[in-house]
Amino acid sequence: MVNPTAAMLVIGDEILSGRTRDANMHYLAGELAKHGIDLKEVRIVSDDEAAIITAVKALAGAYDHVFTSGGIGPTHDDITADCIAKAFGAHLDVRDDARAILQAHYDTQGLEMNEARLRMARIPDGAELIDNPVSAAPGFTLGNVHVMAGVPMIFQAMVASVIPKLTGGQPMLSQTLRVMRGEGEIAGPLRLLAEGYEDLSVGCYPFQKDGVFGANVVIRGTDGARIDAAMTELAKELEQ
Amino acid sequence: MVNPTAAMLVIGDEILSGRTRDANMHYLAGELAKHGIDLKEVRIVSDDEAAIITAVKALAGAYDHVFTSGGIGPTHDDITADCIAKAFGAHLDVRDDARAILQAHYDTQGLEMNEARLRMARIPDGAELIDNPVSAAPGFTLGNVHVMAGVPMIFQAMVASVIPKLTGGQPMLSQTLRVMRGEGEIAGPLRLLAEGYEDLSVGCYPFQKDGVFGANVVIRGTDGARIDAAMTELAKELEQ
Repeated sequence: MVNPTAAMLVIGDEILSGRTRDANMHYLAGELAKHGIDLKEVRIVSDDEAAIITAVKALAGAYDHVFTSGGIGPTHDDITADCIAKAFGAHLDVRDDARAILQAHYDTQGLEMNEARLRMARIPDGAELIDNPVSAAPGFTLGNVHVMAGVPMIFQAMVASVIPKLTGGQPMLSQTLRVMRGEGEIAGPLRLLAEGYEDLSVGCYPFQKDGVFGANVVIRGTDGARIDAAMTELAKELEQ
Repeated sequence: MVNPTAAMLVIGDEILSGRTRDANMHYLAGELAKHGIDLKEVRIVSDDEAAIITAVKALAGAYDHVFTSGGIGPTHDDITADCIAKAFGAHLDVRDDARAILQAHYDTQGLEMNEARLRMARIPDGAELIDNPVSAAPGFTLGNVHVMAGVPMIFQAMVASVIPKLTGGQPMLSQTLRVMRGEGEIAGPLRLLAEGYEDLSVGCYPFQKDGVFGANVVIRGTDGARIDAAMTELAKELEQ
């Protein structure tokens, strides 16, 4: 069985300008790995209609799922819903189900439903709403694209509600061996190991700490017994 | 004058698997902003030849500069140099200048130049070396693509040596106003401001702290006086 594939599209000038460090990608990557969905590609684009539409079309055509973050709030720079609708040729307008959710939330909070807030009830025809337990304004799934908020707390809540509904695969398992030798010393054995275990991914991630070179060797795959076997072989090889 | 544009390509399974949180993008974004080069897009792909080549070609064709991070070490999963050479149709082999740099470094460290380490002297024909003051193994610039290491300390040193050589533009300036009101309250005035200052970018980034909704309004542009004017207008408007 081959795991489903996914891509992520991060939308936001604030990431590309260096103002904000994205936190959502790392979170999504971890959640997808647990659910057996392979994250294959991430793109980050600015709040620009053409850039968003181009990226959504490319990713939705290439992968089983696309997860977007950012650009679904009430302000003028929140254009994600418009772009997704255009990418799919879907009609976009205020939808009664989304409006009712927002109205109930604002009533509770004693806030007025103004024009800006109503923008967040604009949902493409045919999309399914994604629950937002933090601030009510829903995300949505249209086709294979899951449109979520950029604020990390809301993004995470939306991921938690979307992922369990998706068909997963075999969770990606991994083991790490921390080696206090430079990559150049262990590259030979690692290559042989990778060739002997083509069903696994053998990665080597160097670090330098207090002037000493070391590397984390990470063996990844879906078969725990195979990872055990490879790791045992590696540990024995590097012991010599 | 229009600022030069740039894209970044992060290469690494360890980011997509959720194991490692990328740190290089945020650093590069900040450095480019200071130098007046506009970072327009970031892509993250796995250690996969086809994925890397496709992304490099797309980005190198669309932007003035492409910065890559990751995949230039001595192990079997370090395939970036091969992919960049293929993308440009350039010949790749051990180059004497790179080999001499590595040999001098290993001589000093009392390390042996083995086959794995020699891999790091493989540089495409026509490429210019990028200095690596941390661990010697150079990066390189081929065409408009700057190929750099993934280890943050080395990546940062390489960025510091590459960026001053590039023609920059007007540094992107910004001012932030922290507003302790929900986005939905200030969206109207923000839209009017954005319409009145089309040469500036007006972004609104909500947050929630201790149950209170707030937003950072960020006004960005290259003309400091215009930003001052817009910020003054905004502060006055929101005061009412």
